[in-house]
Amino acid sequence: MKALILKSFGGPESFELRDVPKPVPQVGQVLVRVHATSINPLDYQVRRGDYAELVPLPAITGHDVSGVVEAIGPGVTSFLPGDEVWYTPQIFDGPGSYAEYHVAAESIVGKKPASLSHLEAASLPLVGGTAWEALVVRAALRVGESILVHGGAGGVGHVAIQLAKAIGARVFTTVRGANSEFAKALGADVVIDYEQENYVEVILRETDGKGVDVVFDTIGGATLARSAEALGQLGRVVSIVDTTQAQNLIQAWGKNASYHFVFTRQNRGKLDELSALIARGQLRPHIGAVHTLAEIAQAHALLETPNNGLRGKIAIAVVPQADLGGASHGL
Amino acid sequence: MKALILKSFGGPESFELRDVPKPVPQVGQVLVRVHATSINPLDYQVRRGDYAELVPLPAITGHDVSGVVEAIGPGVTSFLPGDEVWYTPQIFDGPGSYAEYHVAAESIVGKKPASLSHLEAASLPLVGGTAWEALVVRAALRVGESILVHGGAGGVGHVAIQLAKAIGARVFTTVRGANSEFAKALGADVVIDYEQENYVEVILRETDGKGVDVVFDTIGGATLARSAEALGQLGRVVSIVDTTQAQNLIQAWGKNASYHFVFTRQNRGKLDELSALIARGQLRPHIGAVHTLAEIAQAHALLETPNNGLRGKIAIAVVPQADLGGASHGL
Repeated sequence: MKALILKSFGGPESFELRDVPKPVPQVGQVLVRVHATSINPLDYQVRRGDYAELVPLPAITGHDVSGVVEAIGPGVTSFLPGDEVWYTPQIFDGPGSYAEYHVAAESIVGKKPASLSHLEAASLPLVGGTAWEALVVRAALRVGESILVHGGAGGVGHVAIQLAKAIGARVFTTVRGANSEFAKALGADVVIDYEQENYVEVILRETDGKGVDVVFDTIGGATLARSAEALGQLGRVVSIVDTTQAQNLIQAWGKNASYHFVFTRQNRGKLDELSALIARGQLRPHIGAVHTLAEIAQAHALLETPNNGLRGKIAIAVVPQADLGGASHGL
Repeated sequence: MKALILKSFGGPESFELRDVPKPVPQVGQVLVRVHATSINPLDYQVRRGDYAELVPLPAITGHDVSGVVEAIGPGVTSFLPGDEVWYTPQIFDGPGSYAEYHVAAESIVGKKPASLSHLEAASLPLVGGTAWEALVVRAALRVGESILVHGGAGGVGHVAIQLAKAIGARVFTTVRGANSEFAKALGADVVIDYEQENYVEVILRETDGKGVDVVFDTIGGATLARSAEALGQLGRVVSIVDTTQAQNLIQAWGKNASYHFVFTRQNRGKLDELSALIARGQLRPHIGAVHTLAEIAQAHALLETPNNGLRGKIAIAVVPQADLGGASHGL
């Protein structure tokens, strides 16, 4: 099979498309024909070596799969060949999704939502699972509360806005001005152009000085420290962007704040919860660009470019796009 | 009545014992004859001006009361004159406890545990409420889990060890070597002399590399960042020491850690919970020194001295010690 091999840690040119042996499903595993995958900041972090000690080279990387079960290993009970599936491969534990075939433990594999194309379905597992973990599991956002989503036009951010609305929260989000309408269309109640406005001032004004209940940080930098200023008493900050930048958190004590640090833990349960929202029309991934496996360097370079103008996700077609039902993927 | 007046922000000499009018209880308030109070790091932080914008001068400060109800205001239903009570005055909202009399809303006042002397009872409300808020409300420490209490011989720390044992947790604690036996007697399972041993190494060794479920930081400094190294997956750090020292929290994401920042919120409910533990013999404050109101400068100076050799709390006798049942306070 064709697979993208990461030869060495470095720039987008570090991948090479090669022929490698097709994997064979073992006990409890399914063999999946990958129809589409997608890219995430985690992918270029892995590529450049941020997690070098956890990734033996050469490696097949990639963290999203939408595809069709081709064969099952002994003991598999949840899937049959022909089933459409989606999932995030075990992070830092075996090959990733940048390949024509992938094997995975059935316990982490979900049934793909029927209303999504493979390109759409491949755009959601990692970011959707991350947003679910952050808002539902860790921050425990509740109906009637308010949330600030930093970076609402991004891969995780555009899913978080929809999830927060589904939960019944009032949603503030920061975006570049050009993405304001996009964020509104996703359901955000108050869209803040962070290049024009101070988000702390906007939030304190809009909440009568009380601040929001939850801040979701998808952008990093000095956001951990500053977000506390926009937070109400007993507020929660959730961050998915690991940074070595030292932060002065003095505002956190007076707010009785909680900070939750999230590195995604994937499982089927979260995928099934997301499927339910998709079926009810409360959640749909947005694809900002589509590339092929052979164009991965180009796709990585695009995602890494600051202010790249992207909205939502970059999907990667692994089978020819004509086979992916392109009309339905929302481009 | 006699009261200690904080004339200006500064050193321990900033207090002056003066005659001031005895307060009169208003609707929903009780007038309490203060038999004893105690001192806490919060008291010298207030004195030196850390919260200057919240403390109009001249001020009566102090955050613990054990005493006897002398009169009740209109509408009070929970107390009668003669009732023994204990509580933490509303922080940053009205006069504190360094005085012969104090008025408080009945909603924050609890019935003093009968088995404690006034000196003991005055040693517990702020530190006990803080430990309860940190371990029970915020970190949600559960039976069978493990916890590291930083500073186990201190005012909050020595209560936290007992509370964690009552919860059914395995307790690690850091102390100076001279306080090891004291910490063991409080119930700590593993006592770490932080001047001789690296607590991260000890904990990883004792937990088969897993780390603890909860770290309770009562000491501040760089503890926020370093504690993550001793933490297990989905572990929680709770800190009660506000610091402007910038912290590199990079270890927190990989652990899926939560950090809870606590500034005490006082209420009667927590006092009643503590009373139940005291009645069952699971909790008892330890008094390391006793001073009088007139000796407050000396007491503050002692608490502020690093490595002061103190164990537990400094209690302050407001009525003559002969009236306090000294024999029962555990000195």
